[in-house]
Amino acid sequence: MDTFFDPRQTAHAPRQELQNGAFVPYAEKPERLDAILSVLPTPLAPTDHGDGPLRAVHTSAYLDFLQSISAQWKAEGRDGDALPYVFPVNAPMHEDFDRVEARLGRFCYDMGTPITPQSWESAYWSAQTALSALSHLSRGDDEHVFALCRPPGHHAGASYCGGYCFLNNAAISAQAALNAGADRVAILDVDYHHGNGTQDIFYERADVLVASLHADPRTDYPFYWGRADETGKARGAGTTLNLPLPQGTRIDAYMAALETALSTIEAFRADTLIVSFGADTYENDPISHFKFHMDDYSRLSAAISRLSIPTLIVMEGGYAVDAIGGIVSGFLDGFAS
Amino acid sequence: MDTFFDPRQTAHAPRQELQNGAFVPYAEKPERLDAILSVLPTPLAPTDHGDGPLRAVHTSAYLDFLQSISAQWKAEGRDGDALPYVFPVNAPMHEDFDRVEARLGRFCYDMGTPITPQSWESAYWSAQTALSALSHLSRGDDEHVFALCRPPGHHAGASYCGGYCFLNNAAISAQAALNAGADRVAILDVDYHHGNGTQDIFYERADVLVASLHADPRTDYPFYWGRADETGKARGAGTTLNLPLPQGTRIDAYMAALETALSTIEAFRADTLIVSFGADTYENDPISHFKFHMDDYSRLSAAISRLSIPTLIVMEGGYAVDAIGGIVSGFLDGFAS
Repeated sequence: MDTFFDPRQTAHAPRQELQNGAFVPYAEKPERLDAILSVLPTPLAPTDHGDGPLRAVHTSAYLDFLQSISAQWKAEGRDGDALPYVFPVNAPMHEDFDRVEARLGRFCYDMGTPITPQSWESAYWSAQTALSALSHLSRGDDEHVFALCRPPGHHAGASYCGGYCFLNNAAISAQAALNAGADRVAILDVDYHHGNGTQDIFYERADVLVASLHADPRTDYPFYWGRADETGKARGAGTTLNLPLPQGTRIDAYMAALETALSTIEAFRADTLIVSFGADTYENDPISHFKFHMDDYSRLSAAISRLSIPTLIVMEGGYAVDAIGGIVSGFLDGFAS
Repeated sequence: MDTFFDPRQTAHAPRQELQNGAFVPYAEKPERLDAILSVLPTPLAPTDHGDGPLRAVHTSAYLDFLQSISAQWKAEGRDGDALPYVFPVNAPMHEDFDRVEARLGRFCYDMGTPITPQSWESAYWSAQTALSALSHLSRGDDEHVFALCRPPGHHAGASYCGGYCFLNNAAISAQAALNAGADRVAILDVDYHHGNGTQDIFYERADVLVASLHADPRTDYPFYWGRADETGKARGAGTTLNLPLPQGTRIDAYMAALETALSTIEAFRADTLIVSFGADTYENDPISHFKFHMDDYSRLSAAISRLSIPTLIVMEGGYAVDAIGGIVSGFLDGFAS
């Protein structure tokens, strides 16, 4: 399977994030990519699809924010990486905010996603990597392609960043596939965490099914989204499927839930499948609590592969740097079997 | 003028707050009270009015949160003061959150209001101080009474804390006055910062006028509230008056805006006035940017006094510990003149 990747994706490297009252080292570090690249064949370089596909998913105000906020942070005399500290409660009464603090709180929803001078460039090329992999898939050379995205994307909404995510690579790809002629796109999210951004973007849409297996939000980040009773709204009623699972879940229980997701995708008659893949279901992931073994991942992908839908795999989370190479290669190998 | 105060209000003492990407010492420190008490006659002790008046303004879920979150923070193994790090974007789809992180992000809107094991006790007695001062006023012994509240209250909403505030002492007093027979209550907020909590609580209410002079939210905290075009809603249309002023404002420009607020209060025919007083309009306040001199404050209060409405003065912010005693005594003296 071909992999797409651009070295500019490694430039974004925040020093720390804030959790539970204290700063800790940033878990979503560039070394994750080095570890994956070391076990894969040389990747293909993405081509630049411009910002049109980004604007098809994210708001202009949000994209302007991502491109300008780091410079504004420095211009207003702040040190280090840009980080919010005050947030609007529910919907704010206005939308035009100029101050760096006001813009950060408006467009960020957590303290774990600092913005550096390189964040935009890395996020931009992460999205281009996904778009280039999608183009490759649509040329029909292969049934499966891997976009080694980083920063990840599934926590980013139309106008918010959070959870290490800035641009929603899976959502951008899904919309690009529709714009290129696909009728029905399914996104299957198998990251440990619920992909709240992806869900929000397509929550009222009938042409994109979002199916997600993830740790129960009653115990795990992002807390405010991902329960089973969130099933879509308006024209999108019934096109969101959440399968929350308890901490400690092992592969057998997971596979049963996966079959539910796969049969829903089949019933949806998707012509394009996008898999948001996280390696953080692994038993030794430093910030997650499922119990997958290294050799479980090919079982997972073999099951997905049996759908026989052209599939774009987009990298999301996974923070056990020592193991992530083996996890990703195991997952990709399962598609070939 | 009599002052009410309870020593339990000093127990709440967070070590630090997070601003602009880094922890800094907590500005709203107990020493503020010591400095004020040192220049006033011995204060009267509040009596306990129970939690009924608190429940008339704040939601049960929020009050439960304030009372339990610090113990939960410790029970779940966190160190130091409780602090959120992830926030719901706009309105969350659910309201029943169990995890400490989820509860913190649901009920707090900034990184500047850590919760300690003593926060509830101090906030509770701060509210009782306001309620006791109100009772004193309603007995008719005096036209003016001072509630030396701390923690302050005007940033706290019906179900959120922030800006050093937990219980909205001015709002609790206004509602208690109405429940005790007042027909129309006016709240005049002359703190440097916009009192977003007070505004939100009464935004759709016709029986409480909220008039506020404050630094323009385009440049100053709390950023998302306080513009001139926020004037109330539904039955409360026209009962919110915001008079934002630029950084650097001196007393003469301020007095002109104050006259607008006072004539609006007169036209409203308020029978009770509650003044949210902040000493942070002072020229050397460490976190604010108006240019009041020490001897300006009696001018301010003399103008308010000419309304001849029974007046409860509730302490809000003010962070120049060396000057705050002189500022408060100057302000209170102006009512007697």
